[in-house]
Amino acid sequence: MTARILVVDDLLVNVKLLEARLSAEYYDVLTAHSGQEALDICARERVDIVLLDVMMPGLDGFETCRRLKTDPATQHIPVIMVTALDQAADRVRCLEFGADDFLTKPVDDLALITRVRNLTRLKMLNDEMLMRASTRRSMGLVDQVALEAALQQSRGRIIVVDDHQRSASRLHEVLSVQHEVSVEAHADTANAKITEDRFDLAIVSMSLTGSDGMRLCSQLRTRENTRHLPIIMLVEPQNEARLLRGLDLGVTDYLIRPIDRQELLARVHTQIKRKRYSDYLRKRLESCFELSIMDPLTQLHNRRYLDSHLNTLVNEAKTNSRPLSVLMVDVDHFKAVNDTYGHDAGDVILRECGARLRQNTRGVDLAARVGGEEFVIVMPDTDRLRAAVIGERLRASIAEQPFRVNDDITLRITASVGLGSLDEADDTPETLLKRADKALYAAKRHGRNRVSADAA
Amino acid sequence: MTARILVVDDLLVNVKLLEARLSAEYYDVLTAHSGQEALDICARERVDIVLLDVMMPGLDGFETCRRLKTDPATQHIPVIMVTALDQAADRVRCLEFGADDFLTKPVDDLALITRVRNLTRLKMLNDEMLMRASTRRSMGLVDQVALEAALQQSRGRIIVVDDHQRSASRLHEVLSVQHEVSVEAHADTANAKITEDRFDLAIVSMSLTGSDGMRLCSQLRTRENTRHLPIIMLVEPQNEARLLRGLDLGVTDYLIRPIDRQELLARVHTQIKRKRYSDYLRKRLESCFELSIMDPLTQLHNRRYLDSHLNTLVNEAKTNSRPLSVLMVDVDHFKAVNDTYGHDAGDVILRECGARLRQNTRGVDLAARVGGEEFVIVMPDTDRLRAAVIGERLRASIAEQPFRVNDDITLRITASVGLGSLDEADDTPETLLKRADKALYAAKRHGRNRVSADAA
Repeated sequence: MTARILVVDDLLVNVKLLEARLSAEYYDVLTAHSGQEALDICARERVDIVLLDVMMPGLDGFETCRRLKTDPATQHIPVIMVTALDQAADRVRCLEFGADDFLTKPVDDLALITRVRNLTRLKMLNDEMLMRASTRRSMGLVDQVALEAALQQSRGRIIVVDDHQRSASRLHEVLSVQHEVSVEAHADTANAKITEDRFDLAIVSMSLTGSDGMRLCSQLRTRENTRHLPIIMLVEPQNEARLLRGLDLGVTDYLIRPIDRQELLARVHTQIKRKRYSDYLRKRLESCFELSIMDPLTQLHNRRYLDSHLNTLVNEAKTNSRPLSVLMVDVDHFKAVNDTYGHDAGDVILRECGARLRQNTRGVDLAARVGGEEFVIVMPDTDRLRAAVIGERLRASIAEQPFRVNDDITLRITASVGLGSLDEADDTPETLLKRADKALYAAKRHGRNRVSADAA
Repeated sequence: MTARILVVDDLLVNVKLLEARLSAEYYDVLTAHSGQEALDICARERVDIVLLDVMMPGLDGFETCRRLKTDPATQHIPVIMVTALDQAADRVRCLEFGADDFLTKPVDDLALITRVRNLTRLKMLNDEMLMRASTRRSMGLVDQVALEAALQQSRGRIIVVDDHQRSASRLHEVLSVQHEVSVEAHADTANAKITEDRFDLAIVSMSLTGSDGMRLCSQLRTRENTRHLPIIMLVEPQNEARLLRGLDLGVTDYLIRPIDRQELLARVHTQIKRKRYSDYLRKRLESCFELSIMDPLTQLHNRRYLDSHLNTLVNEAKTNSRPLSVLMVDVDHFKAVNDTYGHDAGDVILRECGARLRQNTRGVDLAARVGGEEFVIVMPDTDRLRAAVIGERLRASIAEQPFRVNDDITLRITASVGLGSLDEADDTPETLLKRADKALYAAKRHGRNRVSADAA
C-alpha cells in the first residue's frame, strides 16, 4: 500500500530528510514550507496523509491542523504532527487540535514508516466507504452534525490484556479516569470476553507469559465481528520483528515499554475517535444500502430489488427444475380510501397490508411493494396448487380483520390476488409477472376480494 | 491481515504440513480430508480462503471447486488449487473450474504465503463491499445474471511494460490471441498512457533498465483512478526482497522468469476476472448509494438527503454568518391532473417540473422532491430578496411553458412558491422549513401561481 504524503516544515533540511526517507519507501511526496502553503495544497489536490511540523512561524502546526480538521473538504485527511521529544504536553495539544497521530523528533525510521503505513491503510478503507474516488457527491453524504455527535462520545469501553500485575494496574488506573476498563490476564479469557461483549478498543501485551498475545490479535482480526476493533499492542523495546509482524496482522497501533502516560492517553483517544468515524461511515453506507432495496413505507422490498432478484430466483428454479410461483396483490378501491380519508390514512392501510403479507409468507419468499397499492410475492419451491392456498391465506388476512386508521376510523379493506407459476422452459421473469398480472385483472373483473390463477 | 483458511487434502501428511506453515503465520486453519467435507464446512461456517488439492478420491478438487463457485452462497470464497508440478494442463483446468489461484507441489513457502496474503486482502475488500459482515441481506444484492454477464467479458485490455525486446514480443504474442495488448518500454510513457486510457491489467517488468518499474507500480497504486487496476509484476528468480516489496506496495500478482506460458495465461485470466467482479460490486454499491439519496422520478434529491444535508447547510451559514434561504414549491391542482389524465401523465409533469427547477438553480443549491408534488430548494449564500427573485423565476419557468404529456395532451401547469430565510440565531432546519411551508400556504390561499415570503 502506498500513498501521497504532504510533508510540511519551515526548515528545508527537515523537509528534505523526510522526503528522502518516504521516497525510498516509494511514497509519493509533496512538500510545503508553511501552514498556509499546506492548506492551499490540500484544498487544491488529493493528499492522503499530512506530516506536519508543530513549530512554524506564522500559522503554526496546531492551527494548521485545526483548520484542516474543521473544513469538511479536508477533515478526512489523516494528520501526523511532528513534535519535539521534550514537549510531552504538545502531544495532548495535538489531539485537541484534531491530529490523528504524532511523531517525536528526531524522527525514528521505523516509527515513521509504521505510522504512515497504518494511516494509509485506514484512509484507503475510509475512502472506499466514502466512495470518494468515484462519486463527486461523497462529501454531501456525511451529515456533519450526526458525525460530530458520534465523535463526541470520547468515553470508550477498553479491554486490557496483560498478565504483568503492576503494568496492568497502572494501565487500569490511568485509563479508567476517562474510560470503562476491563483487565484480563489470559488471551483465551480475553478472547471469550471480547466475543460476547462490545468493546471500542483492545490493548494487548506482546509479552504475556501464559498465553500468546499475537495469536489473540490474529484471532480478533480473523473474526467478522471483531475485524474492525482497534488494537494497540504493547511491545518491549528492541523487538522490531514482533512489532512489524503485529502491524502486518492488522494491529492498529503500538506503544513501546516503558509506557509514557501522555502517549498512552493520546493513542487511546485517537483510536476510539477513529473507530467512531469508521463506524459512522459503515453505518451510513449500510443504511444507504438498505434504503436502496427497501420500500420505506412498508419495510418490504422495493421494485428495483424485485427486478434484480426475480431474475436470480427464476434462473435457480429452472436450473434445478424446481417450481416457483408469484402472487400479485392489489388493494381494492384504494383510491377511494385516499380520496375520502386522506393520504395519511392510505399510508396506514399500506403499512398494515405490508405487515400482514410479511406475517403470512416465509423467510425465503420475496415480498415487495411494486407500485402505489400493488405488492408482489415470489415464492421459490412453491407449485401452483400450494401458491393458490397461500394466495387465499393472504386474501383472508386482509379481508377478515378491519384496519384501524386512528381512534375514530376503522375500515374494512379487501385485496385481489393474481397467481402465476413457472411453467414453460422459455418462461422469463417478465412472462411470469405478466401472467400474474393477467390473473389479477381477472380477479378484479370477477368482483374483487378473490384469488385468480393463470391458465395451468 | 489474517484469515480463516480451509486446507483440503486426502493425505493427512499434506494437511498437517500446510496447517503448520499457515499457523506459524498466525492464520486460523480449518482442515478437511475430502471434497464433500470441504463443501460441508463452507456451507456451515465462514471460510476466507480454500486451499484445495486437485487429486482426491471421490469428489476431486476440480469438481469441489466447481460446486463452490456455482453456489451463490460460496462463490465469493477464493479457492487456491494445489496441483502437481508436471501437470501444466491442470492449471488451465483449474481456471475453467473457477479457481482463483494455484500452487504447485511441493508448495514453496514464499509462494504459499504471498498467494494467501494477496487473496486475503482482496477478500477483505470485497467483503466490505458486499457488507457481508454486517447485513444478512448481502447475498440477495448480487444480481447473479448481471454478475455472470460481467464475468463473461474475458477479453481484456492489457498494457505490458518491458524494455527487453524479446521478452516483450513474446508476451505480446502469447497474450494477443485473446486480449488487446499494448507494449511500452519506459515506465513514464506507460504511466502517461495508463492515465489517459482505460486498461484492465498492467504487466510490469521489475528489471527495466532505463526506468523504475517498482516506482511505476507505486504511482499506479497512489492515484485514485488506477488504485484498483490489477498489476502483475515480472521478477527475476532469487529476488525475494523485490517481490515482497512489490506485494507490500499493493501489486496484485507476480510471475517469476522464465515465464511459463500456461501460468501467464492463467494469471492474466484470473486478474481480469477478479477486476470484473470487484468493478461489479463497486458499481452496484455506488448505484445503491445514488438511489438512497435521489428521487428516481425527477433525479432531484430525496427527502432523506434534504433532511441530513439541510442540517449541515444551516450550521455552516450560522457559523459563517452567511444568509441562507429555502423555497418550497408545490404544483397547483396536481390531484386533478392525476385524476383526469392518469398517473403516467402526472409522472411526466413531475419529471418536467424537476428538470425546470434544476435548470433554474445553481450547482450549490440543493433541490429535492420531498413529497408527491412538493419540492424544496435550499440556497446557501442567498438572502430573502435574492431568493424572492429566484422564486419568481422558478414560478415563471413552470407557468410560462405548457407541459407536453404526449402527442395529444399538452397542459398548462402552475406552481405556488413559499420562501423562508434564515433570520434568528435560534433558527433550526425545522423552523426554517416551517416558515417556508407557512408562506407556501399563504401563496395557495391568495390564488396560487405566486410567490409568498415569510415575515421579514
